[in-house]
Amino acid sequence: MNIKEKIGLRVRELRKTNGLSQEKFSFECNLDRTYIASIESGKRNVSIVNVEKIANAFNLSVFDFFDSPIFQ
Amino acid sequence: MNIKEKIGLRVRELRKTNGLSQEKFSFECNLDRTYIASIESGKRNVSIVNVEKIANAFNLSVFDFFDSPIFQ
Repeated sequence: MNIKEKIGLRVRELRKTNGLSQEKFSFECNLDRTYIASIESGKRNVSIVNVEKIANAFNLSVFDFFDSPIFQ
Repeated sequence: MNIKEKIGLRVRELRKTNGLSQEKFSFECNLDRTYIASIESGKRNVSIVNVEKIANAFNLSVFDFFDSPIFQ
């Protein structure tokens, strides 16, 4: 699995854990719903500014976002 | 400090800890030296693919790269 796919899995996992739809979550992080969908599909080379937006929308730090076995 | 500046500090810290010049390090991660310099200056919104390249050039996982108080 490449890093884009790992990011996608992590976003989807956190979104589901938080009981959020893609629509609701995209609103929370002020990113487009179709952009969130393509991140979750592992198609996006997400920038660090958007990783931070996503982490913060889950009330996580950037460290917390990457604190998953998938990134180790 | 914004996330781009945090990334810059982290890269510089790891590069110095590893005793590498920007030139040597840019060769290790197959990125341009001027690009590494602008990352270290906090000017770049680095993508996750390049974060992984940088982490791997330090023999670190992406998790390890973000495992610093600066990202918590």
